[in-house]
Amino acid sequence: MSSESSGGIILFTLPLIPHFSFIKPTRGKMKALLINCTLKKTPETSNTQALINKAVKILQKENVETEVLRLVDYDIKPGTSTNEGDGDEWPLILEKIKTCDIFIIGTPVWVGRLASTAQRIIERLDAIFHEEGFTNEENGQYFTYNKVAGCLVTGNEDGAHSCVAHVLWAMQEFGFTIPPNVNAYWVNKAGPGKSYIEAGGERYLYTDKTLYNTIYNLIFFANLLKQNPITTNLTKLAEMAKQESDSG
Amino acid sequence: MSSESSGGIILFTLPLIPHFSFIKPTRGKMKALLINCTLKKTPETSNTQALINKAVKILQKENVETEVLRLVDYDIKPGTSTNEGDGDEWPLILEKIKTCDIFIIGTPVWVGRLASTAQRIIERLDAIFHEEGFTNEENGQYFTYNKVAGCLVTGNEDGAHSCVAHVLWAMQEFGFTIPPNVNAYWVNKAGPGKSYIEAGGERYLYTDKTLYNTIYNLIFFANLLKQNPITTNLTKLAEMAKQESDSG
Amino acid sequence: MSSESSGGIILFTLPLIPHFSFIKPTRGKMKALLINCTLKKTPETSNTQALINKAVKILQKENVETEVLRLVDYDIKPGTSTNEGDGDEWPLILEKIKTCDIFIIGTPVWVGRLASTAQRIIERLDAIFHEEGFTNEENGQYFTYNKVAGCLVTGNEDGAHSCVAHVLWAMQEFGFTIPPNVNAYWVNKAGPGKSYIEAGGERYLYTDKTLYNTIYNLIFFANLLKQNPITTNLTKLAEMAKQESDSG
Amino acid sequence: MSSESSGGIILFTLPLIPHFSFIKPTRGKMKALLINCTLKKTPETSNTQALINKAVKILQKENVETEVLRLVDYDIKPGTSTNEGDGDEWPLILEKIKTCDIFIIGTPVWVGRLASTAQRIIERLDAIFHEEGFTNEENGQYFTYNKVAGCLVTGNEDGAHSCVAHVLWAMQEFGFTIPPNVNAYWVNKAGPGKSYIEAGGERYLYTDKTLYNTIYNLIFFANLLKQNPITTNLTKLAEMAKQESDSG
Repeated sequence: MSSESSGGIILFTLPLIPHFSFIKPTRGKMKALLINCTLKKTPETSNTQALINKAVKILQKENVETEVLRLVDYDIKPGTSTNEGDGDEWPLILEKIKTCDIFIIGTPVWVGRLASTAQRIIERLDAIFHEEGFTNEENGQYFTYNKVAGCLVTGNEDGAHSCVAHVLWAMQEFGFTIPPNVNAYWVNKAGPGKSYIEAGGERYLYTDKTLYNTIYNLIFFANLLKQNPITTNLTKLAEMAKQESDSG
Repeated sequence: MSSESSGGIILFTLPLIPHFSFIKPTRGKMKALLINCTLKKTPETSNTQALINKAVKILQKENVETEVLRLVDYDIKPGTSTNEGDGDEWPLILEKIKTCDIFIIGTPVWVGRLASTAQRIIERLDAIFHEEGFTNEENGQYFTYNKVAGCLVTGNEDGAHSCVAHVLWAMQEFGFTIPPNVNAYWVNKAGPGKSYIEAGGERYLYTDKTLYNTIYNLIFFANLLKQNPITTNLTKLAEMAKQESDSG
Repeated sequence: MSSESSGGIILFTLPLIPHFSFIKPTRGKMKALLINCTLKKTPETSNTQALINKAVKILQKENVETEVLRLVDYDIKPGTSTNEGDGDEWPLILEKIKTCDIFIIGTPVWVGRLASTAQRIIERLDAIFHEEGFTNEENGQYFTYNKVAGCLVTGNEDGAHSCVAHVLWAMQEFGFTIPPNVNAYWVNKAGPGKSYIEAGGERYLYTDKTLYNTIYNLIFFANLLKQNPITTNLTKLAEMAKQESDSG
Repeated sequence: MSSESSGGIILFTLPLIPHFSFIKPTRGKMKALLINCTLKKTPETSNTQALINKAVKILQKENVETEVLRLVDYDIKPGTSTNEGDGDEWPLILEKIKTCDIFIIGTPVWVGRLASTAQRIIERLDAIFHEEGFTNEENGQYFTYNKVAGCLVTGNEDGAHSCVAHVLWAMQEFGFTIPPNVNAYWVNKAGPGKSYIEAGGERYLYTDKTLYNTIYNLIFFANLLKQNPITTNLTKLAEMAKQESDSG
């Protein structure tokens, strides 16, 4: 972990050393935003929060600045625009997404699917596709390019994989990069049963292992993209496509 | 790696210039594998093939070596192991996946979901999780690390997004990296109707634009990972997780 | 508006005759509840409303009492209980569901999935599984038994089938009966484009045909179940299951 | 046609007695077809088979004629027609579906989704929509009208709900009726772990309870529809729709 060569930048400040030697130093402190899509307001106990807390601990150990919030603590109006007015607090959240490097959606499973709150985030981000101001004028990239996304899920019963699939797909569609193995989940056996905290899920090996993989892969890619921003020029590609296509 | 033909540009050595200046030179020729999951054997007309052919053209323009195959032309046994015996031709396909840098699954939509053939690829890749020989001994990474994956879909009717979500999620689970905007699809309006080729979909602007984005983002990330392999040490992380977990 | 004999009953009042002779007379006027899960409050233009309006017209022609509401016009708190307090208006909606015979969820597609509002209905109905008062004391049936459910979807782009699958599955899980062919949808071709109303979808044959099938199959089954309530005794079956099972 | 004792009621002809008094007598013996979509050929141990076997036991107790088969024991070609030739054995399976009253698809979960074999059944049934001979000439109903469908799922890990949702949705689309609570599943906790048989799932209360509900609701509705066939006239409805629609 040296500091002289071209890529060579000291992570954090001396004498801090990253926890794992395989984490490359980055050019500046990274920020992670973790949104908890639990249906329960602070300070109610949230199982998803417990999993998110474990993620935060790992992120902080690697000196990543973290911010965690529960979506239901905010007044997020239904809609697909940036600001639905009438006290809509989505602009606050959107600003946080814009300034993070690592975006993690944590969601409970309800009736086999991701929470309505997680879907609301996705709906509000749809503004990327139909409003101005979300794309780089030079290369047409969405503001999400060079950011990475992952997903955490808890439930007392089946459904986590379908939550992850929808979240990661949507994030990829919005322009986030999806590193390998960036989801961790915990659910109990079939049917009603104990939830994550009550069942001792916080010490469940499989979930812990995949959580570690998730966080370290997110950090690696966030670093990598900070040092090597995506160069794809979507504006030029669109021109190219137009030459071979009929309108519409 | 020649330089005469129509698309013909040498990618790396001077004074060669890549087709788009935002494509970075890489350390060796890249390979893309595109599997067509159509239910129709060669040489039957396949709409998904038509979209894949467009992808190949772009890949070749950027000097990426491409291989395309239809899964139904091979005898791929049901199962989740590497070799199901009895003439199973999956080992041939698996070898191609092992040596590619860019992996693209093209699938038709049937009754709102990806083809059974696409799901069969996913089932066979499940061996990664329960057989030996798929992980790097030093760092525990699957052989898929540093490879990128994307998805192409055609259908005459609704269902493409759910195909993409399942494919990309599964690929991420298997260890592939999912760059931003790496899917392109074409479907017609609600209900039965003309398919991609017959409807002139090959000149449909939206599909063409997203196809260009898909291919160039895949190439960018394949290059990036060739030059900066993922350093995450899954073996060490597993040890870490074990310290904080109960067995099971 | 009733009649005496057990089987032999006149539908509506004379001289009314059901529009189609294949609709059987029922023992009393049926009620249909249609919830529009659009993200737009009344009186904003909602494409899903336009499709729902067509459904209402058919229902009324067959003398079914209909009620239509937009979920976003109400203050429906996040949660999974019957009453989340603090002005929660879910109890009003739940009461309407309890007294309807035919329940239709209409939802737009956003980023390939059903609206957050539709998922919120599903989350709130989850109370059926963990609160008292939702099951018949004698036979253990949920209050939803003998009610039928269907689904309508509009979107400008791909995703309707996955919305329908989730809605119908969840309704089946809650105890509704799902007759054959009880969904109708309209989406445009791949990518951004005109929505239902603007594109003239209200005169789109496929959607109209499937809408007719949806409504008449819902009416047939609602009638059938009114005259032949489900006799399955879930309480007795649970005892049976217990004899063959270990606890938990 | 009633009887006194708790269990004791005559089903069809003496001396048969249905197990539960809430099962109504039917006009003839009913047939149930259960297709096991395991990836393992007979006689390999299949967890899904173990769950199916329990279903069969209940069906037989109620005097329902049952037939069980594993799809992988047959040579089912990829495609969407009734007969793909070249030794295709789908016609044999289709014939069994045509003559059953109760259709149950049992599928394992692989990587969060239903098995490729289950999707293949769905693809082959798509012929209903584009081939002749599947609809009643008088009323335009598919041959599946008046048949009921349910779904059983086993997996060692998350994904059952999404399997059920896809299967039941597709069956509804093909014309089957979906009674309430007609799915039963067993999966273990998050991550790799023991499967149904090994984990003692055959004595797991939740799965057993839902299995009983599934089977008795299927029987009730199969009986109900035998005695009260669906009267919806799809041909007349299509004409109606045409009057209000533009072609296409």
